[in-house]
Amino acid sequence: MSSATEPTMYIPTYDDVLVAHERIKPFIHETPVLTSRFLNEKTGAELFFKCENLQKAAAFKVRGACNAVFGLTDEEAKIGVATHSSGNHALSLAYAAGQRGIEVTVVMPRTAPQAKKDAVIGYGGTIVECEPSTSSREAVFSEVVAQSGADFVHPYNDPRVIAGQATCSKELVNQVENLDIVIAPIGGGGMISGTCLTLSTIAPQINVYAAEPLNADDAARSLKAGYIIADDAPNTVADGLKVPLKDLTWHFVKNHVTDILTATEEEIVAAMKLIWMRMKLVVEPSSAVTLATILKNPEIFKGKRVGIIITGGNVDLDKLPWMDK
Amino acid sequence: MSSATEPTMYIPTYDDVLVAHERIKPFIHETPVLTSRFLNEKTGAELFFKCENLQKAAAFKVRGACNAVFGLTDEEAKIGVATHSSGNHALSLAYAAGQRGIEVTVVMPRTAPQAKKDAVIGYGGTIVECEPSTSSREAVFSEVVAQSGADFVHPYNDPRVIAGQATCSKELVNQVENLDIVIAPIGGGGMISGTCLTLSTIAPQINVYAAEPLNADDAARSLKAGYIIADDAPNTVADGLKVPLKDLTWHFVKNHVTDILTATEEEIVAAMKLIWMRMKLVVEPSSAVTLATILKNPEIFKGKRVGIIITGGNVDLDKLPWMDK
Repeated sequence: MSSATEPTMYIPTYDDVLVAHERIKPFIHETPVLTSRFLNEKTGAELFFKCENLQKAAAFKVRGACNAVFGLTDEEAKIGVATHSSGNHALSLAYAAGQRGIEVTVVMPRTAPQAKKDAVIGYGGTIVECEPSTSSREAVFSEVVAQSGADFVHPYNDPRVIAGQATCSKELVNQVENLDIVIAPIGGGGMISGTCLTLSTIAPQINVYAAEPLNADDAARSLKAGYIIADDAPNTVADGLKVPLKDLTWHFVKNHVTDILTATEEEIVAAMKLIWMRMKLVVEPSSAVTLATILKNPEIFKGKRVGIIITGGNVDLDKLPWMDK
Repeated sequence: MSSATEPTMYIPTYDDVLVAHERIKPFIHETPVLTSRFLNEKTGAELFFKCENLQKAAAFKVRGACNAVFGLTDEEAKIGVATHSSGNHALSLAYAAGQRGIEVTVVMPRTAPQAKKDAVIGYGGTIVECEPSTSSREAVFSEVVAQSGADFVHPYNDPRVIAGQATCSKELVNQVENLDIVIAPIGGGGMISGTCLTLSTIAPQINVYAAEPLNADDAARSLKAGYIIADDAPNTVADGLKVPLKDLTWHFVKNHVTDILTATEEEIVAAMKLIWMRMKLVVEPSSAVTLATILKNPEIFKGKRVGIIITGGNVDLDKLPWMDK
């Protein structure tokens, strides 16, 4: 398993985060931190919600995408960028490329939500469709890159992307004093890796927790096992959290994450509805896994000051998960 | 029509607004002002959304309610407060009374959203139900007050309430420079009156527009006619805007409002969905009437810096208006 446990690529440092933040500031929001007395009373904790659903493209992934795109030389930029993603990374890379005025090609499963395809096109991106399987995605994507020579911006296993995501908790610790814990959802681990990178450097006393759907708990099982476990096609309402860890994100997870907590589909949907109802924020299911795990594990969070990364707000308003019942 | 055109009660001044703001500050949020590049491009205006949906009780009405409740003497407070309301004023008075620890009784139409009834009870209020018409509400309410002697905090035709609502645009002009226009929804006219009170004093160059559902356009017809026209039971998805003007709010509307614009039910629902989709904010239908009228009357707003009061976020998440289709 050595290739899975020792990253073969450059491991970003906090200096990269500082460079990233200066580079992306013109293209992102410093998102607000909101609180809810109701949810504080319900959990016994002091919760500080870092609202990346109010970010450009309604997703933290704009941070990493902008860092990758605006870090390209003019020569590189001329050739354009490409990625595969069924969701927020697709929108975010399209947004970033649009801001720089360069070409972007996104390989998306033909089953991806039309709203997300429309948004990619709205930002000026080109979509190439694949079948909804890992094998089809990789085959189609290889072809795209072979033809165009475009720079591949991986959704998470990329030092530029991780350094970009790391700017989120850099803002958070500046906005909220004396946090005890920061918790974020974990899918491929890009946001968690960025969070670990920033906090282990500038606030190592803060514990980092990750939250994962029980239906896609490969990261939790990886942390217990001590090596990367990848599931092929997990099924969860938290559609941003289906992808597996890769070597670079595993490096940060295994070295800096205190624990990975899980929640059921019902708990995730209930927490999502609670955030909509009490905080008046549109958040996507992936963003609600954190609150679901806090409600499920009060003993960890009680009396603590807890930063929660709300990762995004891209959701189909015509198909809300609590309406399936 | 003299009783309808000359207020019989005290007309609040900007000094009352200053007192109100100091009084209520511990119990309210200074709500954020958010922007959307997409909506700016769509309207050709610069829009600044003052997010009272992120206010305590998710409604600007907390401002007026807190000013009334915390302005009572200890003697008065002991007897408690009462009101009739189709929604947010009920929650808000219940919240304010709960903060002061005094009794509150609310007369609500039996058709009011369950979420709003639950919230009133959650804050410790008592609900007495009436039929969904102005006449029934007033009859039931008279009985309640006759029995308890509670201080009547009218939802809008009350100088204490208007002075409280006026703190919202006081914050707004502090948060955003050089506004040309401020627009707010109009039902009974409490928010619009407060807006007129503040802006006519400290920023008289700003034009105040009101936005109203076409299905409940009594204020627009009043402004044209030059006297109060009241409908008994208009039907609109914007359930906070069904009530008529009263003498005190009419005083501010006729003297300071530039125009009252209207929008159809379809336009209101489309604008509401647009705010949810693009700004990731849960706003109620009444809050979307403003954007609906801006989209409908681009010539008024184009090139202007426009403050928009987002009045509240209390909506039944199980019954969203675009899902009836």
